Amino acid sequence: MEICKRGKEFNIDQLIIFMKFISFTTDFGAGSRGNGVLMAVALKIAPDAHVVHFADVESFNIKSGARILEGISYLPVGSHTCVIDPGVGTKRMAIAIETNRGDYLIGPDNGVLLPACEFLGGIKKVFEITNEDYMLKPVSPIFHGRDVFIPVAAHLANGIAIEELGKELKASELTAAPYKNAQIKNKKIECEVIHINKFGSLFINILGLTMEKFASLGKIITIKTKNKKISLPYKRTFGEVEKGKPIIVNDDFGRVEIAINQGSFANRFKIKIGDKLSIA
Amino acid sequence: MEICKRGKEFNIDQLIIFMKFISFTTDFGAGSRGNGVLMAVALKIAPDAHVVHFADVESFNIKSGARILEGISYLPVGSHTCVIDPGVGTKRMAIAIETNRGDYLIGPDNGVLLPACEFLGGIKKVFEITNEDYMLKPVSPIFHGRDVFIPVAAHLANGIAIEELGKELKASELTAAPYKNAQIKNKKIECEVIHINKFGSLFINILGLTMEKFASLGKIITIKTKNKKISLPYKRTFGEVEKGKPIIVNDDFGRVEIAINQGSFANRFKIKIGDKLSIA
Amino acid sequence: MEICKRGKEFNIDQLIIFMKFISFTTDFGAGSRGNGVLMAVALKIAPDAHVVHFADVESFNIKSGARILEGISYLPVGSHTCVIDPGVGTKRMAIAIETNRGDYLIGPDNGVLLPACEFLGGIKKVFEITNEDYMLKPVSPIFHGRDVFIPVAAHLANGIAIEELGKELKASELTAAPYKNAQIKNKKIECEVIHINKFGSLFINILGLTMEKFASLGKIITIKTKNKKISLPYKRTFGEVEKGKPIIVNDDFGRVEIAINQGSFANRFKIKIGDKLSIA
Repeated sequence: MEICKRGKEFNIDQLIIFMKFISFTTDFGAGSRGNGVLMAVALKIAPDAHVVHFADVESFNIKSGARILEGISYLPVGSHTCVIDPGVGTKRMAIAIETNRGDYLIGPDNGVLLPACEFLGGIKKVFEITNEDYMLKPVSPIFHGRDVFIPVAAHLANGIAIEELGKELKASELTAAPYKNAQIKNKKIECEVIHINKFGSLFINILGLTMEKFASLGKIITIKTKNKKISLPYKRTFGEVEKGKPIIVNDDFGRVEIAINQGSFANRFKIKIGDKLSIA
Repeated sequence: MEICKRGKEFNIDQLIIFMKFISFTTDFGAGSRGNGVLMAVALKIAPDAHVVHFADVESFNIKSGARILEGISYLPVGSHTCVIDPGVGTKRMAIAIETNRGDYLIGPDNGVLLPACEFLGGIKKVFEITNEDYMLKPVSPIFHGRDVFIPVAAHLANGIAIEELGKELKASELTAAPYKNAQIKNKKIECEVIHINKFGSLFINILGLTMEKFASLGKIITIKTKNKKISLPYKRTFGEVEKGKPIIVNDDFGRVEIAINQGSFANRFKIKIGDKLSIA
Repeated sequence: MEICKRGKEFNIDQLIIFMKFISFTTDFGAGSRGNGVLMAVALKIAPDAHVVHFADVESFNIKSGARILEGISYLPVGSHTCVIDPGVGTKRMAIAIETNRGDYLIGPDNGVLLPACEFLGGIKKVFEITNEDYMLKPVSPIFHGRDVFIPVAAHLANGIAIEELGKELKASELTAAPYKNAQIKNKKIECEVIHINKFGSLFINILGLTMEKFASLGKIITIKTKNKKISLPYKRTFGEVEKGKPIIVNDDFGRVEIAINQGSFANRFKIKIGDKLSIA
């Protein structure tokens, strides 16, 4: 690990092996200047990092943001920032979590970071971020993404100890996750919509493993919304039903997806994030 | 070429000369997590590559996607992935094309990759992708972009032989391109709208070279849609007509564009991708 | 500075210190191919640069674009391109500005680059871009972003002298900025909306410093639009008013923002970029 420290010559293998990885997820809007600024601030502090805008999330939607961050399991181990932060500048804490996989998750203490931790081996340590040495100053009361979260992510990527950020917290002191994993009970699963993608497909707080216990492939499932009952098959992929037909599948990130082949389930049945469903 | 292999020291010229280039084009929606994941997976496998999200395309629109990919001619020679893939997980093949320019195009066999090949010197070789050594496993039946196409693109960038991917195919075995180049016939061109951009400008399956044979700059052209006849001048650039006026120009990627100066042609005349036009 | 020139060996500190920085801001639409092409063309000419898509701007909106570019002050010193260019291919000049901070700003002479210069120490030099050696040829009359602005930005990042681009201009010869800083007069500020973000918050041509002179934190401010009078408190951050309530704050880039906590001010009061306001 000594070999590629700054100030030494290095070869391309060493460059590759030691490449830092930083991601950020926001609700600023795709193409927003806010995202460009986070990218640039990260590169200023850690110019030898890969910095990736991971995803843009519906405004203020902590539930959907939490679901999106579960996909970090597909990213390299690194420093991952989330700026869905309606409480910016108020008393809510800024936190940095170390996961058992070795990642750092940095963001507001509003629950948005917690579901991802389950997909990253669980929480190892949590610290409150109060050390201004790792912030851009003056800290804007309305943009902690730029002045607190991304600088801290970049400094962690550069190798500072998480202990330097502030005082250690217990996981139990954190604001709760915005959803739990739904369970099978009386041959039903009471669940909720935690994300809707661009295609209008619903993502549900049911783990794929739970769904596989609940039903076998090919089975017809009944979804009950507030006003409607919809029957659809549990299949592997969209093309296994006709265009325009509904389907339920294991999604691509460990959960369950309800979709229409080449159509929008959310639009047709007027469903939004946070809606409760009953699956039987 | 030996000089910058991994394990050797290198200088900045060598780094620059040997920099790999990977692009991906999808219909996930700008700012979608899917794009962030493709970026990250590519960088995990080829950390010494430039990875660029080339473009986002209208959902499921193979025609528009094919048109967009023609612009790869402006990118460095590299590995270019396209994930417009309504047939994911069904029997459609995954393919990798080597072009005469030296690029690899990787994606589903639904025609989307073919028009770009014309702009890249034509097809040299095509292989079906079946070798799981170059995939992320388990392969999700609904996200081959992440588990098949982008890993294959990154491995090709790393220098594996295209022959390792699976069996060789003939170009004639592939699903046909979603459009052909329209030709002049009886002083007319029967053509179609293959893409509409954010500004509402139409892009047509006519090559710029064909248009130049058909009319000289300054000529008034007549466009016939299903219900309307529109007269507009053939000019060099938008500012040569008044704001709000229609115009036809050679576009910036080898074809023909029909636009309104600082307005939306598609909205004003209710035109969508796939609509047939007659130009006289 | 000699130490990291091409053709020499270098170490990681040198790589980091000499990393070039290029940004581009456009109105092509987030996810548009145009952005992917600019990224790729920049990387072809300057493969050892960080290239960042800084922001996407409302179509043709020079006012909003100028406001967005003020945020370059948070980016590393570098070459920053703006392609909001309704006059492309007409007589309007292409220009490159050197700022006192050391940046290059490259774009059309339509005023869009000027407000940013104030945030970058002011204008040092301006040159017209006419030297075709630094352009992609043939130059498309409808896409100077690709063929003129981004290649020039990349060549400037590579170290060519700005003097090589064309003839020197006086700042006074340039098209005027699309707004000026509003001033306090008779206990009022007559001002205008120069940008609206995704959340529907308004950004105003008032410097934060001016606002601080005009009112102290906690004061109730009256905003007069064409048809309405709105009272709202001047506070530090959104969470200091209830969800759904209006507020005025110092924004995060040196100016003043009028918002609704977790809502859209622009939608509720039907305001658009360019609207005049009176603040008392």
